Amino acid sequence: MMNFEDFEEKTISRKEIFKGHMIDVVLDEVRLPNGETSRRELVFHPGAVAVIPITADNKMIMVKQFRKPMEKVLLEIPAGKIDPGEHDHPKETAERELEEETGFRANMFTFVTSMYVSPGFANELLHIYYAEDLEKVPNPRPQDDDEILELYTLTLEEAKAEIASGLICDAKTIFAVQYWELQQLKTLLKEDKR
Amino acid sequence: MMNFEDFEEKTISRKEIFKGHMIDVVLDEVRLPNGETSRRELVFHPGAVAVIPITADNKMIMVKQFRKPMEKVLLEIPAGKIDPGEHDHPKETAERELEEETGFRANMFTFVTSMYVSPGFANELLHIYYAEDLEKVPNPRPQDDDEILELYTLTLEEAKAEIASGLICDAKTIFAVQYWELQQLKTLLKEDKR
Repeated sequence: MMNFEDFEEKTISRKEIFKGHMIDVVLDEVRLPNGETSRRELVFHPGAVAVIPITADNKMIMVKQFRKPMEKVLLEIPAGKIDPGEHDHPKETAERELEEETGFRANMFTFVTSMYVSPGFANELLHIYYAEDLEKVPNPRPQDDDEILELYTLTLEEAKAEIASGLICDAKTIFAVQYWELQQLKTLLKEDKR
Repeated sequence: MMNFEDFEEKTISRKEIFKGHMIDVVLDEVRLPNGETSRRELVFHPGAVAVIPITADNKMIMVKQFRKPMEKVLLEIPAGKIDPGEHDHPKETAERELEEETGFRANMFTFVTSMYVSPGFANELLHIYYAEDLEKVPNPRPQDDDEILELYTLTLEEAKAEIASGLICDAKTIFAVQYWELQQLKTLLKEDKR
């Protein structure tokens, strides 16, 4: 088994390329463990949250929105980036995003997992929560000014059909649908065992 | 239901920030459907492939490697970016990556899904394949010069334990482990129904 030092890429120099509102970009020259040098193009991102909201009649709430990198409209679970000062409280960010994007809050809010979405070049860490026992917020916090959203509720079969159609095509939402199916199969198996 | 035009963000101007080997970065000024303007920080990426390799004794092959964006060693399924000229044949890229990183090739190679890993700022599309009936390649193509890898094989329980420990912490690998568990539960349920 190799140790950390056998893998580590030491930074020789770093060039700052871009400092944005959402991302920073740097170019590193690194020394590999074998003594060679290489370059790494890196994107630093503040992290994000996503919520899997399940209604009382067992449907998942999703939002349709335009995504500029692909020039396409995608159907996704509610999500948003972590603002400065929120890093220690991703759950609160997730609750805020759920309310802003759907107008709901959840009485049951469970942590599912945290995942680096593209570890080859970006440090974005996405925290995912499962939200049940939803209730409408009387006067929900408004959406961000620059977000145009349309709400949908989908059964598991409908969600799987939209993955097949390509309207659902992002990692967190495909993960969410698969997670939901897994929970339902686990429940079925338990019932079978009784 | 809203139409595409109700969502579309029209590009007013684009500033090229960075042209790299792996990513390009641009800054767009956009016109929102409500007439307001906003800016979008975008990363263009050639796309990537990942492989879920399952051995004859039902273990998943993973690779340990250093990931510069996080300055951490991660345990991941084999993956790699798509090279120029490979865009129409992601399956061939996946077969190449499996051979280069593990020394195996698969007699059963099945498409699982394609997913945008971070649709808020990046257009990276990841194609995932399931690889079974593996055999050792006598003289496998060598690894990339700048990749230091260590191979592991894990049972489903071991993989879930490494998600809990945080060593497995990227989206594609967490998805892969969940996908694998789902296939096993579906098989169990079918057997129960007999």
